[in-house]
Amino acid sequence: MTLEQVLKPDIEELVAQRDFATLRQVLSDWTPQELADLIEALEPPDDVIVFRLLPRDLAADTFEYLATENQLALVSALAQEKERLVNLLNDLSPDDRTSLFEELPGPVTQRLLNMLSPEERRVAVMLLGYPEDSIGRLMTTDYVAIRPEWTVQQALDHIRKHGKDSETLDVVYVVDRSWHLLDDLRVRELLLAEPTALIADLMDERFVALRASDDQEVAVAEFQEHDRVALPVTDSKGVLVGIVTVDDVLDVAQEEATEDIHKLGGSEALDAPYLETPLLSLVGKRARWLVVLFLGEMLTASAMGHFEGEIARAVVLALFVPLIISSGGNSGSQAATLIIRAMAVGEVSLRDWWRVMRREVASGLALGGVLGLIGFIRVSVWQAMFGTYGPHWALIGLTVALSLVGVVMWGTLSGSMLPFVMRRLGVDPATSSTPFVATLVDVTGLVIYFSIAAALLSGTVL
Amino acid sequence: MTLEQVLKPDIEELVAQRDFATLRQVLSDWTPQELADLIEALEPPDDVIVFRLLPRDLAADTFEYLATENQLALVSALAQEKERLVNLLNDLSPDDRTSLFEELPGPVTQRLLNMLSPEERRVAVMLLGYPEDSIGRLMTTDYVAIRPEWTVQQALDHIRKHGKDSETLDVVYVVDRSWHLLDDLRVRELLLAEPTALIADLMDERFVALRASDDQEVAVAEFQEHDRVALPVTDSKGVLVGIVTVDDVLDVAQEEATEDIHKLGGSEALDAPYLETPLLSLVGKRARWLVVLFLGEMLTASAMGHFEGEIARAVVLALFVPLIISSGGNSGSQAATLIIRAMAVGEVSLRDWWRVMRREVASGLALGGVLGLIGFIRVSVWQAMFGTYGPHWALIGLTVALSLVGVVMWGTLSGSMLPFVMRRLGVDPATSSTPFVATLVDVTGLVIYFSIAAALLSGTVL
Repeated sequence: MTLEQVLKPDIEELVAQRDFATLRQVLSDWTPQELADLIEALEPPDDVIVFRLLPRDLAADTFEYLATENQLALVSALAQEKERLVNLLNDLSPDDRTSLFEELPGPVTQRLLNMLSPEERRVAVMLLGYPEDSIGRLMTTDYVAIRPEWTVQQALDHIRKHGKDSETLDVVYVVDRSWHLLDDLRVRELLLAEPTALIADLMDERFVALRASDDQEVAVAEFQEHDRVALPVTDSKGVLVGIVTVDDVLDVAQEEATEDIHKLGGSEALDAPYLETPLLSLVGKRARWLVVLFLGEMLTASAMGHFEGEIARAVVLALFVPLIISSGGNSGSQAATLIIRAMAVGEVSLRDWWRVMRREVASGLALGGVLGLIGFIRVSVWQAMFGTYGPHWALIGLTVALSLVGVVMWGTLSGSMLPFVMRRLGVDPATSSTPFVATLVDVTGLVIYFSIAAALLSGTVL
Repeated sequence: MTLEQVLKPDIEELVAQRDFATLRQVLSDWTPQELADLIEALEPPDDVIVFRLLPRDLAADTFEYLATENQLALVSALAQEKERLVNLLNDLSPDDRTSLFEELPGPVTQRLLNMLSPEERRVAVMLLGYPEDSIGRLMTTDYVAIRPEWTVQQALDHIRKHGKDSETLDVVYVVDRSWHLLDDLRVRELLLAEPTALIADLMDERFVALRASDDQEVAVAEFQEHDRVALPVTDSKGVLVGIVTVDDVLDVAQEEATEDIHKLGGSEALDAPYLETPLLSLVGKRARWLVVLFLGEMLTASAMGHFEGEIARAVVLALFVPLIISSGGNSGSQAATLIIRAMAVGEVSLRDWWRVMRREVASGLALGGVLGLIGFIRVSVWQAMFGTYGPHWALIGLTVALSLVGVVMWGTLSGSMLPFVMRRLGVDPATSSTPFVATLVDVTGLVIYFSIAAALLSGTVL
């Protein structure tokens, strides 16, 4: 049981009694995290009442932990009390404010922007100027910058004075007069150095910086490679414009993985937790892809219709249709997911397509060979036990086996190459989802199967 | 071009000339990250030669950035030079040493353990005592602990003296005499406080701690919720045993997502980057599941065999088989991936199964209705244009439409419930991969389709 679960009834009781003095006293002991959990658990208007009772600093900290829907509800409830809203907005950290603004309709964002202090507005407008999903949207301007000509003692005094708002004190940044980034220094280096040493002497001028206009996926990869707590962000001229902290990057990594998994499963990304997505939007996001896939899959009915005569003459051919096309779909799914994930984490890039193709042709042959062999054995055993397939069982078995080799090869190849095609076209590779690959392979798989059957069986079964 | 790509030919030249003095001088300018990239790029035995030239501290830092295969190669190459190996092992940070030991065969680990200093061996054995994938394996013992009765100045002096090995200096931990964790304090709080203040007065005794025996997925969720740089790890009695830093957690989150995506795609997790996985192991990890799925899918041939008479009488029924079963597979894939990811990130737990089921029954009905309607329109249009389906086209259309509703409902329901069954059985929910769900739905989908056909069409088409 969490604190907010235990005490929720008591809080509700106090709100009902309008005993705000006791309530304020009780809440002053809570952490922002706990307060956020409590406010999320309360029914309106209790949530707004409790939030209003919080002292200014605590209100801003708590707000940052709230879910977006609760943030939006509070902002609209506070719209009547301009001063409180102004204070709240000004107290938020820049990255949290940016993500709140992103969720609001344009005119509301504009109105809120006007409430900010000139300095905060400048920061907010700058952050909002970067494209969505860019590193610029992820960064905060709350960091400490120091100068190379200072002593360690001067730097530490500066940190003590201006570090209050900084998101991390593990790292500070050395900049020149024009705010060009010269180096990053871990605060531990300052703590361990002689107070009289010059900052310039501690510098090695080696640092990793992110570009504000780059995609947030780049930030994830850089943080994974460099094991840092925070990385500085520069513009195209090398001027320090902000920092990104690793805790925000962890959220991005998890969101990107969720998005990819949703797409791989053949629906649009939900953009919200499953249980919180309204049913209508849940159905909508799934229906769109399902209908597209269904329309594609209709081609199987046409393809089969094309071979209707063969099926009428040898119904036995129809029996293996699901087995053969699903094997193509399964091997294609495997290949597509392996390649899409490898691309997402930066292990495979566009220029690797040829290496991947060679590997996948070999894998496809091997996998198709295994399944083909099993398929042939299946036909032989059933023939021996039940005489299911008549005098030409060996030819039927061979048709099934060869079709499996061909379909699995084709599935593997198209599953592995589609993500490259997607990326080349500028589309997210995860869009070539497993159902998408399966549908593509189903139609061609049927053509492969019936063509092999026509070649091998005409004159006997057909 | 990275530094190591530019200079690799020069380095190889220097190695060939045995000009180790120049080489040592050149390399002293490089960062551990750059050195690791260089060593990974060099052919043996150049990589070992370059590594041997590094000064002791730099060697340990560089080693931590190397890929596991390069680490293993260096350890076996250095086995002849016991002293160097001893120094290297003692200089590694505990979490990196643990993950190296994990990769080695048991007897080798034992031999290397014996090379450690008694203190380091105690730490290594303790870390290795935790189950694989537990938080205990992820933690490091390099942190700074302070006492509540100290002043801020005493604490800062202690950090300056003992903080050299600490993985983060953003946070220090307050412990009592028996090393019970009392609180965590951000170093910024110390920097911003009066030097004469007591640590006890800065404490709020509110902290989040991880349990060493918990799964690493718990650490990912806790870091996501609390936005921290590092979290302390305690044993079952609340004694501080180590800390986990967020950069390691980011790696875990990415690995877990990759594993889930591989499983969702219907292969075993590769455990290594795609291009670095040997072809044989790549094929093996995919073949196992592909064969299992193939054996399952064989039931479709039996199911279709059961309805062979119906197909012979109405070949038209066979034409819609791929369309109908793939719609079930696709809707099942969607449901399974949404639920599996929601479980992985902790949005959905076992006790939510009933809520999920109600949502999925509703979604399945809606999605099935949409596809059924499109299916019926397809039959009507083809009938109007080509007269494909004869006098009983409306009944055939109805059979297709109703089968689609049933199959999509069934696909959605089994796709969403299978992950719950898996988790209940203690199996990773991601094992109910999209191909697995599709196979399951294919077989039952055929039965649903032909049963509806038998009911609706007997006496007319059948």
